[in-house]
Amino acid sequence: MARIKVELNERSYDIMVGSGILSELGRILKGEGLSREVFVITDPLINDLHGDKLRAGLKGIKHEVLEVPRGERYKNLKVAAKLIDELVQHSAHRDSLIISFGGGVIGDLAGFVAATYMRGINYIQVPTTLLAQVDAAIGGKTGVNHPKGKNLIGSFYQPKLVYADIQCLSTLPARELRTGLAEVVKYGVIDDADFFKFLEANSHHLNTRAFEDQDTLRASLKVWQTIVAESAKIKAKIVAKDETESGLRMILNFGHTVGHAIETLTRYKAYNHGEAVAIGMVVAARLANRLRLLDNGSVDRLVGLLLKLGLPTEVEALPAAKIVNALGIDKKVRGGKVLFVLPESIGKVVIRDNVSPRALASVLREMGCK
Amino acid sequence: MARIKVELNERSYDIMVGSGILSELGRILKGEGLSREVFVITDPLINDLHGDKLRAGLKGIKHEVLEVPRGERYKNLKVAAKLIDELVQHSAHRDSLIISFGGGVIGDLAGFVAATYMRGINYIQVPTTLLAQVDAAIGGKTGVNHPKGKNLIGSFYQPKLVYADIQCLSTLPARELRTGLAEVVKYGVIDDADFFKFLEANSHHLNTRAFEDQDTLRASLKVWQTIVAESAKIKAKIVAKDETESGLRMILNFGHTVGHAIETLTRYKAYNHGEAVAIGMVVAARLANRLRLLDNGSVDRLVGLLLKLGLPTEVEALPAAKIVNALGIDKKVRGGKVLFVLPESIGKVVIRDNVSPRALASVLREMGCK
Repeated sequence: MARIKVELNERSYDIMVGSGILSELGRILKGEGLSREVFVITDPLINDLHGDKLRAGLKGIKHEVLEVPRGERYKNLKVAAKLIDELVQHSAHRDSLIISFGGGVIGDLAGFVAATYMRGINYIQVPTTLLAQVDAAIGGKTGVNHPKGKNLIGSFYQPKLVYADIQCLSTLPARELRTGLAEVVKYGVIDDADFFKFLEANSHHLNTRAFEDQDTLRASLKVWQTIVAESAKIKAKIVAKDETESGLRMILNFGHTVGHAIETLTRYKAYNHGEAVAIGMVVAARLANRLRLLDNGSVDRLVGLLLKLGLPTEVEALPAAKIVNALGIDKKVRGGKVLFVLPESIGKVVIRDNVSPRALASVLREMGCK
Repeated sequence: MARIKVELNERSYDIMVGSGILSELGRILKGEGLSREVFVITDPLINDLHGDKLRAGLKGIKHEVLEVPRGERYKNLKVAAKLIDELVQHSAHRDSLIISFGGGVIGDLAGFVAATYMRGINYIQVPTTLLAQVDAAIGGKTGVNHPKGKNLIGSFYQPKLVYADIQCLSTLPARELRTGLAEVVKYGVIDDADFFKFLEANSHHLNTRAFEDQDTLRASLKVWQTIVAESAKIKAKIVAKDETESGLRMILNFGHTVGHAIETLTRYKAYNHGEAVAIGMVVAARLANRLRLLDNGSVDRLVGLLLKLGLPTEVEALPAAKIVNALGIDKKVRGGKVLFVLPESIGKVVIRDNVSPRALASVLREMGCK
C-alpha cells in the first residue's frame, strides 16, 4: 500500500493507495480515531458493485448507508439538503464520520454535506473511479451544481483520509477509465517528465481494458497502482502549496479552460470530462507551440500518448467561434483576462493571459473545428 | 478608531471599531484591495435606517444591494440559494466582495453565501447590532437554519474585515441593546475581571438607552466604543486559539448550554438570545457555586450586574424537568456527555462534564422553575 501525505498544517491527511484494501478500512479508521459513528454516502450502482466489500471492512463499526440517485444531475442543493435531513434523522453528531463512497459526483456531494453539516464534520474519500482516485477525491474541493453552472455552490473542505482501492477500477467501463487517464497524462505534462515517460512506456497496459483479462491483470495491477499513487503524489504536492486555488493550483487547470467550454457547449453529452480535457490539452500545447514556448516534438508526444490511450485529440462539430466566445464566461477569468496554462516542455507549464482569440480560433480550426 | 487583529495565519483579519465610520468604508476597502465588485446583502429595515450612509461610504465603488426579508425565519437554505441565484445573475466572480450589512441573521446568511459561492469568495462583516458587533460578526461562524435545528447547515469561513460602527446602535430598541449586553457580560466572566469591573462601574451608561439623550450621548459613546472593542478583543483572542470550536472556543458557550435549551423550549418567543444567555449564565454560576468552584460573592456580582442592565436572572413558566431533558439533544454534547462551562471566579471558567441532572434541576427550581 502506498501512503502519500497532503501537507496542509492542521488539515494534513494521508492518501492510501492499494489493491484490495477496502476490507482493511475499519482497522485504519480505528487507528485514526475516526470510527465513532459512520455514515456512508453512495449510489445504488456502487453499493451493488462494491458495497459488500466496504461493509465487510466496516464490520464492528456502527454505520448507516445513505444512497442518493446516480448521476451528475443529482449533484444539487436539493439532494444535499435531503442528505442533511437524513443525518439529522439519524442524530449524526459533530463527531460522526461521513464516508464518501463512489466517483467524483458522490465525492463532491458527500464532501459538501460534510463541509456544511453542523459547520463541518469529518469525512473521508473512498473513490471508486480512476478520475476520482487521481483527481476529484484529493484536495478538498466540494460542491454541488447550480442551474447556471457546475460546482457553483461549494467549499474547500479537506477530508481526513483518501482511501483508493484500485480493485474498484475493475468494474469501470473502458470509457470511464480513459476519462481518468486524461488527468493522469495532465500530471505528467504539468509536473513530471519521468512520469510522462512511464505512461508512454506502459500505454499497452492502459489502452486495453486490462482488468478484463486475468493474464494481463497481474502485470497491469502494478502499473495501475503506480499511476494512481504517482498522480496522487503530484496533486497532493500542488494542493499543499495552494489549498484554495489562489495561485499555483491553477496549473491543475491545464487543458480545462477549453475543456470546460467544450463540455458546456456539447451539454456534457458528446464528450465526457477526460475527453474534453484531452482536447483542451492539445489546444493548449498547440497554442504554446504558436507562442514559441513548446517545440513540435513535445506536441507530437502529447498527441501520440493521448491517441494510444484512446482519447480524442480533435474537436468535431463545434464552430471555433462558439468556443472562443464561451471562454469569456469561464470561471477561470481573473480581472477580465482569460488565463491559459501552457506547457513549456513535457513536465513544466506556465500561466499566460496573452492568448489572442484569433490564435485560439486558428488552433481550433486546425483541430477540426468549423 | 480601534483596530483589533484576529490572528489566524493566512486567514487573519482586522476588526475596526469606531463612531461614524461607515462613510470611510470605501477608502478602507480600496486600501485593502477589496473594492473590485461589491454586493451588499442586507434587509429592508437596515437599508432604510443606515443604507444611505453605507452607500455614501461606497461612493465610486461599483456595488449592488441585495435585500432579503428581515427575520430569523428567512435564514434558511432557500433564501441562501436565492441570493446565489442573484449573484449568478449579476455575474459575481471569484474576486467579488460580499458585504454583510445587518445583524447576526444577515451576517450568518451572507457569510454562508460567501463561503459557498464558487467555493468561497471574500466577504466583510459590517454588523449593525450590538450582538453582532461583539459576537456574531467575529470568528467566521456562518450558517442557516434547518427545520430541525438552528445553524445546522453552515461552515467556518472567516471574513476579510469586521467593521463596526457604533453609531448604528443608536437605532436599536433597548431590548436589542440588552441582548448584546448579555454577551458583553459573558466576556468579562470568562476572560477578564477588569472588564467586568468596568461594566459594573459604567452600568448607568448601559442601562438607559444612552443614545436617545443627546446630553449623555457624548459620554456614553466612549463607553460603548470601549465595550465593543474590548469584547471584540476577547472574542478575537479566543477564536485565534481555536478557529473551529474544537476546544477552547467552547468557553464562549458560557451561559449558552442552558440558554439554548430555554430559547428552544420557549420557541424563541419568551426570551431573546441575550436574555436566555443571561439566565444560562446565572444557572452556570449557581451550579459552579454548588460544586464549590465559585464563591457566593461572585454569584451575587453576576446577578447584580445583569439586573442593573435589565436582563433576567430567573426563569419563569418552564418546568425544570423540560430544560434538563432538552439538554440531552443539545449540540454541545460530546461523546454522550453534556459539557458545562462553569466560572471559577469572575474572569476564569473551566469546562466540566460532571453536572448531574439533579443538581441542574435543583438550581433551576431555585431560580423560579416549576
